[in-house]
Amino acid sequence: MDSFSTWVKARREWLEVALLETCAEFEPEELRSACRYPLATGGKRFRPLLCVAACEALGGTPEAALLPALALELVHTFSLVHDDLPCMDDDNYRRGRPTIHSIHGEAVGMLVGDALLAEAFAVLAPAGAQQVRELAWATGPGMVAGQYLDITATPDIGVAALERLHRAKTGALIRASARMGGIAANATPEQLEALSTYGDAVGLAFQLQDDVLDADQDRDPTGPPSFVKCLGLEATRSRALAELERAIQAVQVLPDPSRLVSLARFTVERSG
Amino acid sequence: MDSFSTWVKARREWLEVALLETCAEFEPEELRSACRYPLATGGKRFRPLLCVAACEALGGTPEAALLPALALELVHTFSLVHDDLPCMDDDNYRRGRPTIHSIHGEAVGMLVGDALLAEAFAVLAPAGAQQVRELAWATGPGMVAGQYLDITATPDIGVAALERLHRAKTGALIRASARMGGIAANATPEQLEALSTYGDAVGLAFQLQDDVLDADQDRDPTGPPSFVKCLGLEATRSRALAELERAIQAVQVLPDPSRLVSLARFTVERSG
Repeated sequence: MDSFSTWVKARREWLEVALLETCAEFEPEELRSACRYPLATGGKRFRPLLCVAACEALGGTPEAALLPALALELVHTFSLVHDDLPCMDDDNYRRGRPTIHSIHGEAVGMLVGDALLAEAFAVLAPAGAQQVRELAWATGPGMVAGQYLDITATPDIGVAALERLHRAKTGALIRASARMGGIAANATPEQLEALSTYGDAVGLAFQLQDDVLDADQDRDPTGPPSFVKCLGLEATRSRALAELERAIQAVQVLPDPSRLVSLARFTVERSG
Repeated sequence: MDSFSTWVKARREWLEVALLETCAEFEPEELRSACRYPLATGGKRFRPLLCVAACEALGGTPEAALLPALALELVHTFSLVHDDLPCMDDDNYRRGRPTIHSIHGEAVGMLVGDALLAEAFAVLAPAGAQQVRELAWATGPGMVAGQYLDITATPDIGVAALERLHRAKTGALIRASARMGGIAANATPEQLEALSTYGDAVGLAFQLQDDVLDADQDRDPTGPPSFVKCLGLEATRSRALAELERAIQAVQVLPDPSRLVSLARFTVERSG
């Protein structure tokens, strides 16, 4: 295994353990289990890894980024739980497991999402005002507003509006992941700016690659709007590579950007 | 108008203006309006008033309690929006106005609730880690857990379980309102303890009086469990008065408890 893969494996295992210790104050036990159920998905943990990588890129310890990393994954999981509800995408399965609402009903599904969002801020509180502000912004005017743009989008949405939608819906939290890792390592304003550019580019590259991977279903004209529909498959691939290049360039000013570069490459080279 | 009524009117008007300036960063404009719609209900603003009163009881300025007060009302409003959704209580009207989901659909209703919860923490962030922790706890292991207990309660719930349910569902946020006002005024540990006891007693008195006011509908045996059903009407009234007494006693150690006493009396003497 190369050193990046070793790093990912070690950090992921460390985050998994800590993540399943969150929500400890929720009672009764059935609610606590219901909150932890969508946290134990075997997901990529992309946002917390990005946060920890940004912190380490500035010479910070992984421990310094732990609370922001956990809070980011809690917010991401909250968004998945609410997205899967019948009133949104109505998905009964995620990564091959039944979704929480398909087991315990829609009311419990909504409450579990609400609980995970509250827990994110409980976990993050000790990290200070700047981190809380960062996450709250990425969640509300970022992700939730992006969801609103998504559910109200018309099929003839142009590429500019589609970019705005994805910058909010998925980009804001990915950008916040990079920034919060930087804040945890006491980034200078210039370093934070570099991480913002990196996060913005990685967020877009992530969505462009998602659309490339979903290109088959994108041929359905009644399906949701996508970059492949707006730009075509080849132009979407090129744009993803251009965003990857922008991300890599941005972080060259940081002391140790190698893992951030590898994570950015992963977003464009992954096949799922 | 007596001095308490004058104080309530002045503080309420001041809070109303500030409350309708929240959610300013949400775009598009339709989403920002949708978020502000349930904030403009003409509600009692009981939680923010309690917070400001607790701060002033310790000699703090109302301004010192503004951010916690706004955050508390944002969380309260989030809970009303999610409670009214079809998958929960399915209410199309609240205080005579159509609920947000009955106008814009369930998906927008859920997103508006999510947005208000995120905004609460954005507003509160500058007030510091202790305040964020306090609100996050009252929201998650408090209110959301209380909602879970409520939707999973059986009709034969006993009075102890009913008390636990209401201490979580409505009590935790009312208790946090008193405590957060105290924290804003740099309360000593003893003063914070007094405000906790006060908030706990007022929260229970509030719910007991709600059940007294709803006593007619409580005669419906298929309706939700209530203190009147468990204890009878007279015992519920007596218990509310006992909690009022406990609240009033607790705050006698504070420099200027008069408005807290008046707010506690209001919870038991109100007729709606």
